[in-house]
Amino acid sequence: MTRPNVAVLVGSLSARSINQRLSLALQAAGSEFLCFAPVDISYLPLYNRDLDGDLPPAVKRLKKQVEAADGLLLVTPEYNRSVPSVLKNALDWGSRPYGASAWRGKVAAVAGASTGALGTAVAQTHLRTILTHLDILTLPQPELYVKVTDALLSETGDVLSPDFERLLVDFMQRFAAMIGSGRA
Amino acid sequence: MTRPNVAVLVGSLSARSINQRLSLALQAAGSEFLCFAPVDISYLPLYNRDLDGDLPPAVKRLKKQVEAADGLLLVTPEYNRSVPSVLKNALDWGSRPYGASAWRGKVAAVAGASTGALGTAVAQTHLRTILTHLDILTLPQPELYVKVTDALLSETGDVLSPDFERLLVDFMQRFAAMIGSGRA
Amino acid sequence: MTRPNVAVLVGSLSARSINQRLSLALQAAGSEFLCFAPVDISYLPLYNRDLDGDLPPAVKRLKKQVEAADGLLLVTPEYNRSVPSVLKNALDWGSRPYGASAWRGKVAAVAGASTGALGTAVAQTHLRTILTHLDILTLPQPELYVKVTDALLSETGDVLSPDFERLLVDFMQRFAAMIGSGRA
Amino acid sequence: MTRPNVAVLVGSLSARSINQRLSLALQAAGSEFLCFAPVDISYLPLYNRDLDGDLPPAVKRLKKQVEAADGLLLVTPEYNRSVPSVLKNALDWGSRPYGASAWRGKVAAVAGASTGALGTAVAQTHLRTILTHLDILTLPQPELYVKVTDALLSETGDVLSPDFERLLVDFMQRFAAMIGSGRA
Repeated sequence: MTRPNVAVLVGSLSARSINQRLSLALQAAGSEFLCFAPVDISYLPLYNRDLDGDLPPAVKRLKKQVEAADGLLLVTPEYNRSVPSVLKNALDWGSRPYGASAWRGKVAAVAGASTGALGTAVAQTHLRTILTHLDILTLPQPELYVKVTDALLSETGDVLSPDFERLLVDFMQRFAAMIGSGRA
Repeated sequence: MTRPNVAVLVGSLSARSINQRLSLALQAAGSEFLCFAPVDISYLPLYNRDLDGDLPPAVKRLKKQVEAADGLLLVTPEYNRSVPSVLKNALDWGSRPYGASAWRGKVAAVAGASTGALGTAVAQTHLRTILTHLDILTLPQPELYVKVTDALLSETGDVLSPDFERLLVDFMQRFAAMIGSGRA
Repeated sequence: MTRPNVAVLVGSLSARSINQRLSLALQAAGSEFLCFAPVDISYLPLYNRDLDGDLPPAVKRLKKQVEAADGLLLVTPEYNRSVPSVLKNALDWGSRPYGASAWRGKVAAVAGASTGALGTAVAQTHLRTILTHLDILTLPQPELYVKVTDALLSETGDVLSPDFERLLVDFMQRFAAMIGSGRA
Repeated sequence: MTRPNVAVLVGSLSARSINQRLSLALQAAGSEFLCFAPVDISYLPLYNRDLDGDLPPAVKRLKKQVEAADGLLLVTPEYNRSVPSVLKNALDWGSRPYGASAWRGKVAAVAGASTGALGTAVAQTHLRTILTHLDILTLPQPELYVKVTDALLSETGDVLSPDFERLLVDFMQRFAAMIGSGRA
């Protein structure tokens, strides 16, 4: 029995990203039933629609990775109450040219981490609006707004709280069920 | 073979509502494979959480109608760039008391009509944010932002444009497929 | 020297509303330089545009209270990630009929309280979108997303933390300066 | 008498950008009372917070241009229902490092053009949420959601409709008045 493929996009370029940590923790929580492939979105140029007819090689690679995936795991910081440019940039490139989007019909799960109380809640509403337009079906609950503390998540992505561990496993199980039902 | 039940909520109290018209047109477009039940949300009092422990009879009736439905069709105007109070009120009542929401796990489709160019696009982003929190899986595409004209839709909800008719049928077929896949 | 008039709208009907508490604390913080008038929005019927030509007496009263104010203080809970129906209802009524909105050109400040971590952050983004459309100039910072605890705010609205007290005074001073500059 | 300085940011990198056209038309409409300086945001790298302590030269140049401005004119397309990465990227860089944002206290006006009916309305709600967080006071009305047609706007930014011309002049006059009142 094969596990569904999940492409993982993280909305931070920081080498010490807490969202990268959260991404690793989510992958560990779902590793028994899902197979993950990280997608590097750091090498993409800023989106320019004049290149829609001749996509840069890095964009073609992104689109192939997305097309090969059954599901998408998006883990993102909130910058100034919205989605980071690096993630929006990848979403826009992958949707081009018009009529040949790589995102269409995928199933996604969304999560985010911050050191503040909001846990990326506002950015996630923007992200879900984008995903709706991209014709991506997105797991509604659990909403995962994570305020990262050292007691919750180690620097290597180890989950240090049993309650949080249960939440992550529940999140990934629901996501896997959604992929499995083949609705997308 | 039974057709899935769809509860229909319209976000306007106007006797001449163009959203009521659009709702009728959508029901006609899906009547072969779905069974519709209108939900009257005009009689609900303004939501007050002090009544969570003793819900008014009109709220209990709303929750029963929602619980009996496999899917939800929400057709709404945009008032001042957001959701009308009559619809938000019904969504809030139906979610109470905490832990006993009637909405959880439902599948929904969202549409809206206006006489202006935006076709309720901004209100629908707010509505989808609410539906996400209510744990409702919502059809992402087609986004249905309808600028109503007399050439498009008659006062009795007759669709006067073949292109628009095809769009409505496609919308309802995708919605029915989403209900049928049993993901919710 | 007269203090500017501020109409106060609270988005909760609960007798034990923590937003009512926050509203009282904000009024206390600004009482030296602003004069507050609470606006009761609980008696308004659900908005129906068929009544635009003959507004109910309660709506006419609301509009007069708004028109008499120099500024607006909106304090609101977040219900299901958006604005409560009672507040959206008042905003919609006050904007009607078309061309005769009571809100136009006012200056507003927005705050909200919850018992959870988000402190109404998502609802406030929806509220600000509405206020923009209503042509209301709104204080951008400080964003006031308050997680209410008994150590922060007593049941009668007494502020129990010096840091929080300073934040509320700063918020009200900036709001007063914005009203005073007469930009609206 | 000196005219206030307005920094102009356009959210498109396309050589044939209709938003660049709209930007030129807005500058022409306000040229009697405002002085415009275009800000090139195409050379910025993707935002990475690891560089907050040692900003790239292009970012330092951006921040200087913003700091020298009295007002900001933001003209943006909508990509997938949100803000383009090139614009979000500039907004994020200009806000860093924490506590040294170049945006704080500025006054802004927002507009956008598309070939579709929505005219960037949804992207503008996201943009305004970002601007609020950046402590930028933003002109509420007129909302400027422009569906560009050849009858409205020539390729060189000439306005071809008297009604549209009046709207642009009104927009820029209100923006200038808002800058002049010195509220920011």
